[in-house]
Amino acid sequence: MDTTDYDLENLPPDLSYEDFLQMLLPLRDSLDILGGKWKLQIIFSLKFGRKRFKEIQREIPGITSKMLSKELKDLEMNDLATRYVHNTAPITVEYELSEYGKTLKSVVIELYKWGSAHRKHITSK
Amino acid sequence: MDTTDYDLENLPPDLSYEDFLQMLLPLRDSLDILGGKWKLQIIFSLKFGRKRFKEIQREIPGITSKMLSKELKDLEMNDLATRYVHNTAPITVEYELSEYGKTLKSVVIELYKWGSAHRKHITSK
Repeated sequence: MDTTDYDLENLPPDLSYEDFLQMLLPLRDSLDILGGKWKLQIIFSLKFGRKRFKEIQREIPGITSKMLSKELKDLEMNDLATRYVHNTAPITVEYELSEYGKTLKSVVIELYKWGSAHRKHITSK
Repeated sequence: MDTTDYDLENLPPDLSYEDFLQMLLPLRDSLDILGGKWKLQIIFSLKFGRKRFKEIQREIPGITSKMLSKELKDLEMNDLATRYVHNTAPITVEYELSEYGKTLKSVVIELYKWGSAHRKHITSK
């Protein structure tokens, strides 16, 4: 069975341990690539257009230059963001969400929605 | 404007820096609560029913007892999982996704789908 063909809504009743592990793989991949506190915040920031390093840093409270630099490199490596270097003096560097990065839209939206609902859940207690 | 009322699909054209920071909050909450490599894998495992500690550990390759124990405590603290202690000898402890934990379904499904598509994206290169 192709790992990517499971339908989480309609699982076979006889799901084996091996099938379960196979199913876990795509989720693990996502978490490996997107996991941690910052990457999806950066993706969110870049949803609003091409930005300079300093602009992204200003928009994400608490991120240090070092972390942002590392996270942007990871995103670039995975084709999710594109880096542009402009030959100005001093050199300007900009980042943009790649076409592939745009496929993360639903993931960001679901996390955003859950976080919104969670705020309501907490405050209604 | 209520933080939770933004529609990510239809953003106001005049989004200010303050509005942007407000919008980022729900996403940050989600990432704070669900971030890291393990929590959503545990949620995924519990989607298939109530499980003992050792069962969950067996299903998530690479997680140590210590990490699983910490992550389960975090999930319990946020109402996402429920812990059952059975007065057997030896005592058995089981975990179940709470009703509130079930609200994470769409988040897990979107990450799963993206991971599946990503596997195809990588192998098609």
